[in-house]
Amino acid sequence: MEEGTVQYYEAKGQAVPEPPPPGDQPRPWSETTVIGKPLPRVDGYERVSGAAVYPSDIILPHMLYGAILRCPHPHARVKSLDIGKARGMPGVHGIISGFTRGANPDWVYASFAKVEAPSKIFDPHCRFEGESVAAVAAESPYQAWDAARAIRVSYEVLPHVVDELKALDSRAPRVHDQGNRVGEPQKYERGDLAGGFSEADKVLEMTFHTACELHTPMELHGCVASWEGDRLTLWESTQGVYSVQSGVAKVLGLPLSKVRVIGSYMGGGFGSKLFVDKYAVIAALLARATARPVKLFLTREETYLATGNRPPSHMKLKAGVKKDGALTALDFSCLGTGGAYPADGTSLVDWLIRDLYTCPNVRSEMTDVYINAGPARPMRAPGHPQGAWALEQMMDALADAIQMDPVELRLKNIPAASQARAGNPLYTSTGLRQCLEEGARAFGWKEARERIRTGESRGHIRRGVGVAAGLWFVGGGGPPSTIIVKLFADGSVNLNMGASDIGTGTKTVMAMVVSEELGIKPELIQIENADSGTTQYATPSGGSKTIPTESPAVRAAAIEVKRQLLEMASAELKVESSQLVLKGGVISARNDPSDGVRIHDLKELGKRGVIVGVGYRGPNLEGKVVNPFAAQFCEVEVNTLTGETRILRFLGAHDSGRVMNRLTYDSQVIGGITMGIGLAMTEERVMDRGGTGKLVNRSWHDYKIPTSVDVPAEMVSVPIDPGDTEANTTGAKGLGEPVTIPTAAAVANAVHHATGVRVTRTPMSPVRLCALLAGNRKEG
Amino acid sequence: MEEGTVQYYEAKGQAVPEPPPPGDQPRPWSETTVIGKPLPRVDGYERVSGAAVYPSDIILPHMLYGAILRCPHPHARVKSLDIGKARGMPGVHGIISGFTRGANPDWVYASFAKVEAPSKIFDPHCRFEGESVAAVAAESPYQAWDAARAIRVSYEVLPHVVDELKALDSRAPRVHDQGNRVGEPQKYERGDLAGGFSEADKVLEMTFHTACELHTPMELHGCVASWEGDRLTLWESTQGVYSVQSGVAKVLGLPLSKVRVIGSYMGGGFGSKLFVDKYAVIAALLARATARPVKLFLTREETYLATGNRPPSHMKLKAGVKKDGALTALDFSCLGTGGAYPADGTSLVDWLIRDLYTCPNVRSEMTDVYINAGPARPMRAPGHPQGAWALEQMMDALADAIQMDPVELRLKNIPAASQARAGNPLYTSTGLRQCLEEGARAFGWKEARERIRTGESRGHIRRGVGVAAGLWFVGGGGPPSTIIVKLFADGSVNLNMGASDIGTGTKTVMAMVVSEELGIKPELIQIENADSGTTQYATPSGGSKTIPTESPAVRAAAIEVKRQLLEMASAELKVESSQLVLKGGVISARNDPSDGVRIHDLKELGKRGVIVGVGYRGPNLEGKVVNPFAAQFCEVEVNTLTGETRILRFLGAHDSGRVMNRLTYDSQVIGGITMGIGLAMTEERVMDRGGTGKLVNRSWHDYKIPTSVDVPAEMVSVPIDPGDTEANTTGAKGLGEPVTIPTAAAVANAVHHATGVRVTRTPMSPVRLCALLAGNRKEG
Repeated sequence: MEEGTVQYYEAKGQAVPEPPPPGDQPRPWSETTVIGKPLPRVDGYERVSGAAVYPSDIILPHMLYGAILRCPHPHARVKSLDIGKARGMPGVHGIISGFTRGANPDWVYASFAKVEAPSKIFDPHCRFEGESVAAVAAESPYQAWDAARAIRVSYEVLPHVVDELKALDSRAPRVHDQGNRVGEPQKYERGDLAGGFSEADKVLEMTFHTACELHTPMELHGCVASWEGDRLTLWESTQGVYSVQSGVAKVLGLPLSKVRVIGSYMGGGFGSKLFVDKYAVIAALLARATARPVKLFLTREETYLATGNRPPSHMKLKAGVKKDGALTALDFSCLGTGGAYPADGTSLVDWLIRDLYTCPNVRSEMTDVYINAGPARPMRAPGHPQGAWALEQMMDALADAIQMDPVELRLKNIPAASQARAGNPLYTSTGLRQCLEEGARAFGWKEARERIRTGESRGHIRRGVGVAAGLWFVGGGGPPSTIIVKLFADGSVNLNMGASDIGTGTKTVMAMVVSEELGIKPELIQIENADSGTTQYATPSGGSKTIPTESPAVRAAAIEVKRQLLEMASAELKVESSQLVLKGGVISARNDPSDGVRIHDLKELGKRGVIVGVGYRGPNLEGKVVNPFAAQFCEVEVNTLTGETRILRFLGAHDSGRVMNRLTYDSQVIGGITMGIGLAMTEERVMDRGGTGKLVNRSWHDYKIPTSVDVPAEMVSVPIDPGDTEANTTGAKGLGEPVTIPTAAAVANAVHHATGVRVTRTPMSPVRLCALLAGNRKEG
Repeated sequence: MEEGTVQYYEAKGQAVPEPPPPGDQPRPWSETTVIGKPLPRVDGYERVSGAAVYPSDIILPHMLYGAILRCPHPHARVKSLDIGKARGMPGVHGIISGFTRGANPDWVYASFAKVEAPSKIFDPHCRFEGESVAAVAAESPYQAWDAARAIRVSYEVLPHVVDELKALDSRAPRVHDQGNRVGEPQKYERGDLAGGFSEADKVLEMTFHTACELHTPMELHGCVASWEGDRLTLWESTQGVYSVQSGVAKVLGLPLSKVRVIGSYMGGGFGSKLFVDKYAVIAALLARATARPVKLFLTREETYLATGNRPPSHMKLKAGVKKDGALTALDFSCLGTGGAYPADGTSLVDWLIRDLYTCPNVRSEMTDVYINAGPARPMRAPGHPQGAWALEQMMDALADAIQMDPVELRLKNIPAASQARAGNPLYTSTGLRQCLEEGARAFGWKEARERIRTGESRGHIRRGVGVAAGLWFVGGGGPPSTIIVKLFADGSVNLNMGASDIGTGTKTVMAMVVSEELGIKPELIQIENADSGTTQYATPSGGSKTIPTESPAVRAAAIEVKRQLLEMASAELKVESSQLVLKGGVISARNDPSDGVRIHDLKELGKRGVIVGVGYRGPNLEGKVVNPFAAQFCEVEVNTLTGETRILRFLGAHDSGRVMNRLTYDSQVIGGITMGIGLAMTEERVMDRGGTGKLVNRSWHDYKIPTSVDVPAEMVSVPIDPGDTEANTTGAKGLGEPVTIPTAAAVANAVHHATGVRVTRTPMSPVRLCALLAGNRKEG
């Protein structure tokens, strides 16, 4: 870690319910010595060396392996099931299905499904390709897969619809009996839309489409299930051990205390591991049926079929703007689909339309439909990259239309006060202006545009720059969170936290918070993996709210430890604790630093063995909204002959409040931009819409995520910190999702700048771009 | 569980540092509905069915098995070590020893050894048979053992002494350079000893000997060690996860936070698993050397050689008594040995002599010596059964001498006030009188003696009855202890406790405490296994202090949960929380029980997911001593021709304060008496004193512990509860050790009553008894 002090502010927005500590505690975080530094991950060695134990590494005595037989049809009904051959195959210990004697065919897997469309664990009505039909436990995974394939299922194949644009046709097959429309469209309106448009000098209307994306985290989905008497333990790759706990308990009718979910290390989830999935329940049932632990990890293909996706969006946006750049009206509509379940196909898509700019007249209408495809799950900034794809390209087009710089147009429309629109709660802080201004300055926005305008971009290699902005919510975090910090007699620390580090560096930041308060080296601070049995309650790690939620509780726990430590030292040194200072593991009188006592020399601590500090997450400030903001800039080079786009450089300017760790902060920016490039350029779940209705791209070979050659070597992070003293007691507002929201739109804007062609449909493949360039026409 | 209410008192001795809860909380324990009932163990099914996972059940991926090569000589020096052949044997991955390159030959295993005699992990100076010389890790335990045997060690065999009575001879070989005497003898004196004896009407002097016993718990000693980066995890069969943590950290120079010890289920320890043993450090070193997890479980033979024993005692006791039964003087001396280490050969042996009776003039002197034998460890009531063997037989002899009933003699000498002797702190409660009186009444003491006196006992089958008393200390428990109770939204509970349930039913009692306070069924309460990483700090489970230490903290945590729960319900029901009552999972207004809300219907709890209650162990009352007391009675039948003794019945009357669970309470009484019968009748570690110096009995075949045919079918428990309101907030004083203290002496007294022969040396084998009966002489 670097030496020195980071100049900082004191954050105090969230109540710390602990009594005020004596002495110099809590030292204001107006300047910090650890927080904000680029500390490498505390668990980096374990992760890189292979020493880290992931759930897929778990092997238990007598463990069996599970495999799920999945429906090969997009829509079918299971008529009967013959397990005769499978049952006798080598190594097979148990087979369960909706037809198994003693199995409860009514187990409803409803924890994430909306009530109108619950699904049974083995639902005889299979509404998508990949629905669970039966499961096998055997001595080896190969034996389990072989036996699953040997189960003979008699299906009644039903007509299907896998194209969301055809789902509402009157002749379309019904996914659910009640029809393919998910309830009523979600509507929102403010102001006077018609009046807004009549005030406008320019009105544009465009349609935008984003493809369905797959989370495809490096670590596959799966778990190991083991019963000890009436208690179930699951080692699961999950973002939230308590979320899996409650989901499994609900389906199986178990008391929450009898379901223990252990998180271990985690190899990515991006939202697909926020909630329980059927496989966890199936693993538990197989383990119960065989009286053996069962390991059930899915294949990549199974995760593509069944564990979630980002819904496709079909958006129409009409916008009015005055010559001076003031937005007058936004009229937005969207059609989406969460597949056959869980009916969340348009979740949060209109969020940006409503709130990013101060436009007075806004209307939105979102229609969600069922199709015969795998379920949607929240995916890194649910709804927001889609909304940005539409809104931020529209802003670019409006800027063109009124001949204004796109950055300037945005600056005209961002909240002047800390408030998106009249009547809404105030933001605790708004760094959007700085994101745009400082980002543009650092990127060399004006210079680049001038460079390109004056002819740098010529021939068939065309250059362009693009900008896009975004916001995210839940930035303040929130209760509940409980943290326990144990200071051992040798001055080392154990931190008990129920939130998972899903690969984002949560543990490292929490170690830094403890280190900041107690002056203990991060390498002496051990942070337990999330475990619903033994670590404290926490909501799932997701929504960019892990650090804002947990770090204030960690800080409160560390402060409580320090309070007790100084009281202990006070008795030993015969100095008032208010006069004591803790620095570098030594407690000394404020006026005499030479005559101190080291933590591990405190006799009472040696006797007691430990100091326990409990920290709670108090309620946030009422009447304020905590939002992170973002602006991203990029430069591209398009080969207009081949349609290939090279992204040359990217810059992310992010207001996510306090920078807790500059290294992991920048890594998040790079990772978010990379994922956004995937949305923009390559990622698309392809269904055989006209024919079989089956998934076409079923592996990493066919589903393309960006690799190192697809992202620019130059990715710059420009942290914008407005010094938010009200967000919470650490001042961090959350970073994981904001960093991927504007990316794809920024690329599209840059491509338009380079070529004059506006690509409104993802992914921007060379083939698609070539076609557009050849026609030099707008995409519909 | 039975229905109804146990009439009880309110205990309040230990401060509960939590704020006073609202409403009817804490409900006084003047009557209880759960506590005191005979609840079967909450983990009984797991233990009996085989579902419970013990450390020896742990299998980790890529795990190797360890084996230790142990010195075959009682005293030798390792000159050199050739691992050439062993290294090349099948499956061998690593070999470590004091000679291993890169190994630190100076690792000192000093955590339990007194400083004057530290031992290195692989000490080239082997001071007892079974000392660790080298260790191997291999693919299977058999390969590891084979390879260990293939290591060629060149020993310089040194002269040995294994007879503690010869250790102080000037010509005896020295175990340690400084000689065989462990420091200065421990001395104690009060009053005027010579004056006391001169006042006496009768003075007796006798010698007593107890053999060295082995703990021999059902579950063998061992652990699984695994490194994850710089953090070591040990799954260990231990009484104290934090004790092993600190021991291993100290030897290996690791921060405490980097050593995690997981306790799992536990199959007995009796004191031999209170502290870290070398094998745990060796397993950690093997795992580090091979970069693989290593499982290292000892054989029964190894545990007999190296993991502890109850030191043998050679005691002399001179006692004076007046005709009226008043003791006037006690002069006691004892020689013991802790083997080559750790010099605790006489620990607590004179405790009873000093404190059980109010004798004004007492002297004791205890001499501890080193011999070339395995180390002593605390064993169920360290020192006390030995002291009782001497004192309680002497009381019997004195009663004979003054022709007084032995029960009456004891009653004459027990503290009249709640105080053993002038100047000592008061007891919080003293049930010794009731133990003797109510025990004698329930046993039918007078009737039995009359029955025997009047000729029931005749021919070569002789009957006799015996009594003995005892006390124990630390009955109030003590800090530190922290407990966390999590109440989940469905009304089930998770209890996080760092104390191990070593087979005594700790978990069941803690579940009852939570159940008593929250009205939640014990089967909905899950208690985590001790884990130094994720459960709260606790001292080792031992010293009969687990329940007095932990149960008040559990109670405080449950009360805090209830306080928060009622506050939550208050807001929801719009009723002052002081007016709310929690009963059977329903919270209702005190004056309207019909209109309540069930815990799992509370909206705020559903939203928050959990209520967290933290309970601490506050300090005990100052200036008071909390002691359990005991009196046991038995009837025997001796075949004077064969020397065989049948124990016909036993009764234990115990003042251990509040009876928390009548079922596990009685089980402890039965278990303690069984172990005491082992001391009395069969158990003896036999060394080849005259020859090789090696251990003779190395298995359960040759080391005899009592079986079901050796204990009486009739074992009666008579709980004596003096209603101790000062011990702590639950009123329990600890039971595990008091129940085995008087047993052996009671048997010896009964044998004397039956035969007129006083057996002063354990074990009372038929051969020994025959010899004594033949000579009808006192044993010296």
